[in-house]
Amino acid sequence: MRERALIADLLAPLATHRAARGLTDDAAVWLPPLGREVVLTHDVIACGTHYLPDDPPSDVAWKLLAVNLSDLAAMGAEPVGVLLGLTLGGHEDDDWLRGFVAGLGRALTHFEVALLGGDTVRWGGAAVLGCTAVGQVPHGCALGRDGVRVGDAVWVSGTIGDAGRGLAVARGEAPHDKRLLDRYRRPNPRLALGRALVGTATACMDVSDGVLIDAQRLAAASGVGIELDLAALPVTGDCDEAERLIRATAGDDYELLFTAAPDAELAALATAKVPLTRIGRVVAEPGLTVLGAHGLITPARLGWEH
Amino acid sequence: MRERALIADLLAPLATHRAARGLTDDAAVWLPPLGREVVLTHDVIACGTHYLPDDPPSDVAWKLLAVNLSDLAAMGAEPVGVLLGLTLGGHEDDDWLRGFVAGLGRALTHFEVALLGGDTVRWGGAAVLGCTAVGQVPHGCALGRDGVRVGDAVWVSGTIGDAGRGLAVARGEAPHDKRLLDRYRRPNPRLALGRALVGTATACMDVSDGVLIDAQRLAAASGVGIELDLAALPVTGDCDEAERLIRATAGDDYELLFTAAPDAELAALATAKVPLTRIGRVVAEPGLTVLGAHGLITPARLGWEH
Repeated sequence: MRERALIADLLAPLATHRAARGLTDDAAVWLPPLGREVVLTHDVIACGTHYLPDDPPSDVAWKLLAVNLSDLAAMGAEPVGVLLGLTLGGHEDDDWLRGFVAGLGRALTHFEVALLGGDTVRWGGAAVLGCTAVGQVPHGCALGRDGVRVGDAVWVSGTIGDAGRGLAVARGEAPHDKRLLDRYRRPNPRLALGRALVGTATACMDVSDGVLIDAQRLAAASGVGIELDLAALPVTGDCDEAERLIRATAGDDYELLFTAAPDAELAALATAKVPLTRIGRVVAEPGLTVLGAHGLITPARLGWEH
Repeated sequence: MRERALIADLLAPLATHRAARGLTDDAAVWLPPLGREVVLTHDVIACGTHYLPDDPPSDVAWKLLAVNLSDLAAMGAEPVGVLLGLTLGGHEDDDWLRGFVAGLGRALTHFEVALLGGDTVRWGGAAVLGCTAVGQVPHGCALGRDGVRVGDAVWVSGTIGDAGRGLAVARGEAPHDKRLLDRYRRPNPRLALGRALVGTATACMDVSDGVLIDAQRLAAASGVGIELDLAALPVTGDCDEAERLIRATAGDDYELLFTAAPDAELAALATAKVPLTRIGRVVAEPGLTVLGAHGLITPARLGWEH
């Protein structure tokens, strides 16, 4: 399928938002509601690096949107739309494209975001899929990483480490488990939680490279330290300290890691599907400290360094 | 150089706009001025497809910004900032990166746009460079492709075909010519012209795939036809009809192609560097008609089809 057909026949029917102008103009034009700031993020997923060539194309579309919307969630923003940069190789044949676009349509509907525009390129290399997510937030209300205060409690949403186990399943290194595979291939950006945290969280980010390394970054952005209780980490099932460390450094969780005043009442923000767990505290001494059952732990690695 | 160092050491110093938050948060946060619509576009340039591996990295950075800003120009928008998705391979070593970032800094300054955010990925393939350009336009004033009216005059800015000749120089297929090389590697988005055309042009687009094929698309978007006078096409130097056809289908011009009422006074919008030339007229019969010295011409191709 040529680029023009891909856009006209498959993508344009999804671009129903007025701002997209049917994908026929050189750019999208969107009027933000009064008093809102525009929130903008761009993440790339490359075939073989961020997803596997055999991942179902509909899941690849989901993941492309989800990892970008997760950044909006971390800022407390409401998503509006996406622009896609699809650089496609020989592996992405017409069947793959139809699967991708079908999954894209379902993801756009699920997340209530508009397809606003983008670009498609055919080349000889592997696929590189870029997404710009556009969101909005009431003026002055965006969450950031630099508001952490000494004495704050450190919280995380959901469970940590399941996506990493899903990657092992996808690679054939662990027995098939649909739920874990889905955690890796179809992450759930915590959009409702992010918006609910505005006014309560002092700082927030999403967990993509491992909760340990990301906690270290959150602390560094605010010039403080974070102490994490490894035993408090929300994990699926029972696991010992060694396994907890593996999960805490596995990445791809797309949960929210955030800080709040120690007396902040967060129970009301949790749901059955998205529990919130207090996993540590903020201290003055910069750096990350991991506490195990028998005292301080020095992990060999904290997560994915790029 | 690792991604983190690339961002912290090279890119963050360029991200001086408040909205970029020093590239330390998960997204940029920008407050558009009152009464403005947000204009958004995303274009990808891939190494070997849209630029050559040996092109100077500073020119690649320029081109990445310029082709995206050209889309804002076509909408009559004022540029605000860019987000970059840089997927880099082995060819893009530290020297290349430093050259790219130096050129990026100069281009940001020249175009007065902010670096707002983005993503960097290291992989084994060739480079894929994505850019999202963010602009603003007074509410309701954006230009589009669907406002062409029968009887309108068809205009184009600058000269057509020089970038295509520059590509031949870059490929070693034509004698060295710095001016032509620059037309290919360092296009000049017609930002001031685009804004000046708001209220005067009935429709506008930028010329990227060849003025003939792009004129055909402009006509199709409005459901009308366009007649072009090949002899009127603004070209550098003398050239016969066959050469004019080559230039009219060469692409990469990044000039503006637009329509206006036949009595619209456009001379005041032209400058010494950006002349405006009337090259045709809008007719009711759909399609593109090319007129040569001896009547109708049917070109073998109209430009780059994707």
